[in-house]
Amino acid sequence: MTPAFPTLDALRATTVDLPQGDAEAAAAAAARQKILTKPPGSLGRLEDLAIWLARWQGRPIPRLDRVEIVVFAGNHGVTARGVSPYPAEVTSQMVANFAAGGAAINQLAGIAGATLRAVPLDLDHPTADIATAPALTEGEFLDAVSTGANAVTPGADLLCLGEMGIGNTTIAAALCAALFGGDGDAWVGRGTGIDDAGLVRKAGVVDEAVSRHAATDPLLLAMRLGGRELAAILGAVLRARRIGVPVLLDGFVCTAAAAPLARLTPGALDHCRAAHVSAEAAHRRLLDALGLTPLLDLEMRLGEASGAAVAVLLARAAIACHTGMATFATAGVSDRPE
Amino acid sequence: MTPAFPTLDALRATTVDLPQGDAEAAAAAAARQKILTKPPGSLGRLEDLAIWLARWQGRPIPRLDRVEIVVFAGNHGVTARGVSPYPAEVTSQMVANFAAGGAAINQLAGIAGATLRAVPLDLDHPTADIATAPALTEGEFLDAVSTGANAVTPGADLLCLGEMGIGNTTIAAALCAALFGGDGDAWVGRGTGIDDAGLVRKAGVVDEAVSRHAATDPLLLAMRLGGRELAAILGAVLRARRIGVPVLLDGFVCTAAAAPLARLTPGALDHCRAAHVSAEAAHRRLLDALGLTPLLDLEMRLGEASGAAVAVLLARAAIACHTGMATFATAGVSDRPE
Repeated sequence: MTPAFPTLDALRATTVDLPQGDAEAAAAAAARQKILTKPPGSLGRLEDLAIWLARWQGRPIPRLDRVEIVVFAGNHGVTARGVSPYPAEVTSQMVANFAAGGAAINQLAGIAGATLRAVPLDLDHPTADIATAPALTEGEFLDAVSTGANAVTPGADLLCLGEMGIGNTTIAAALCAALFGGDGDAWVGRGTGIDDAGLVRKAGVVDEAVSRHAATDPLLLAMRLGGRELAAILGAVLRARRIGVPVLLDGFVCTAAAAPLARLTPGALDHCRAAHVSAEAAHRRLLDALGLTPLLDLEMRLGEASGAAVAVLLARAAIACHTGMATFATAGVSDRPE
Repeated sequence: MTPAFPTLDALRATTVDLPQGDAEAAAAAAARQKILTKPPGSLGRLEDLAIWLARWQGRPIPRLDRVEIVVFAGNHGVTARGVSPYPAEVTSQMVANFAAGGAAINQLAGIAGATLRAVPLDLDHPTADIATAPALTEGEFLDAVSTGANAVTPGADLLCLGEMGIGNTTIAAALCAALFGGDGDAWVGRGTGIDDAGLVRKAGVVDEAVSRHAATDPLLLAMRLGGRELAAILGAVLRARRIGVPVLLDGFVCTAAAAPLARLTPGALDHCRAAHVSAEAAHRRLLDALGLTPLLDLEMRLGEASGAAVAVLLARAAIACHTGMATFATAGVSDRPE
């Protein structure tokens, strides 16, 4: 497959002058919402979802025929530091579980009417331990970004992004601390369920990594403090923006992966919605920093696009109302006086 | 149809010694959640939903084959006070819209895989204006409660309750103020979209009604300050508890309708979940008073069971994971060390 981004400069060049979506389609969708048989605004964020999908699909009546879920998986050298209660081999075991249909995301994709692809990224070659070395070389980083970009299907109606990678909440915390400031202990959480001592270790690793790899360029930070699955998500978010595919971001790691784009270009995540806020406390802090309001708050903290898949259900509810409801005129229902 | 409750005392007698659900089924469901291929607790409230459904269906593996939505509709004399921007005839027009399939709830029921019934309650005879007289006579109240109770299908897997009634956020505010204390302006909101002057009128009507009909008996308050659709919801919630049908409560009016039961008997709403918190500000206050945590917060404020129907999607996601996921043992995924 041709690398979408052969150099860092080529990647950087595609992060500016981003398309802004179809304002006319959005306006038409908003106008339609006003004549449906309900008080204006009374479907709340379901109305917003319909209008947002209209803008980014470029259709006043959006559709959800092709909803895709892509879960990128990567391994991390930082697991040697004892930052997760699960062994690193769980990453590949869970990829096998995705293939066999036994994971949560398989069931949720079924309910959401979405296709699911898991994309393992060089699982036999973990990234370097960020406490001592840059996570990825430039070539490795660009390969992963390109893989993510190439995973986006042109013409998809909605794309859900997620990740799997033992150790990657540590990676996400380090990336957030470097991008937005704050000590490690402000950005680390229990991930899959680390104990108190592990949490202290995790914060220490983050502080060490951030002080070692400080940079102002968000892409360099994503390379030095990130991981392959995070880089792939960044590439997918960027490509989706360029080809008109709206995106549901999953939890803390997925949102952190996209965050460098927002630091490079204001509004770079306008084609994304935060599917949910996870129980990992730093996720809310990150969403606040990005100005994203989550659709769901179900205390989930699983990753693997699980929150994004549940949010697809809200998008389906929104589009069902947008397309199927009668208008005041056709239903013979009295509208409020002007 | 035989009235389920011929007298107030007969009704009151069924509000005590309530069944507590199947603790063994709940324990089995909780045990199953722990062996599925995910960190324990990482599906958050989806795990809780599966365990809750197990308890109230009495099945370790709950099912959602028969999900029913019932929307009760009533008219209110208080509309003469100018408390809604919509004319009272919209209640029956919307019932016709439900029958024709054009309302939001029709589309949401379709997405949720639920059957929908609208039950109009004597729409040609609005309740009395609560500012000057009791809303309902004892006979009218018991008839409506009985209709609600009889609307619950034995063997349903999940019941969504909702309402339609121009003027009924005023009624719900009055009932809440009488049940939980607080002035009218703490409990009124904009409903379908009343303006500032209307909001002041609404609070005044509530204060007038509450001072006129003060009582300590929650059932008398439901009779004097309620309405037929609220009484029917109360009857349905009670009947569902007795025959083992879990309930999703919709928004402010629906929750207010069920609230007298909680005031009569602690734990009377344990078989209910709050589907969402609506944009009507008093709803959060009411949920807090009842100790209910909403599943969704989508700024919806439509009523007609719309929030409950959306929450069915979460229940379906929960049950899909509960039934379909592999265990650590069967998937060959390494569990965390004990």
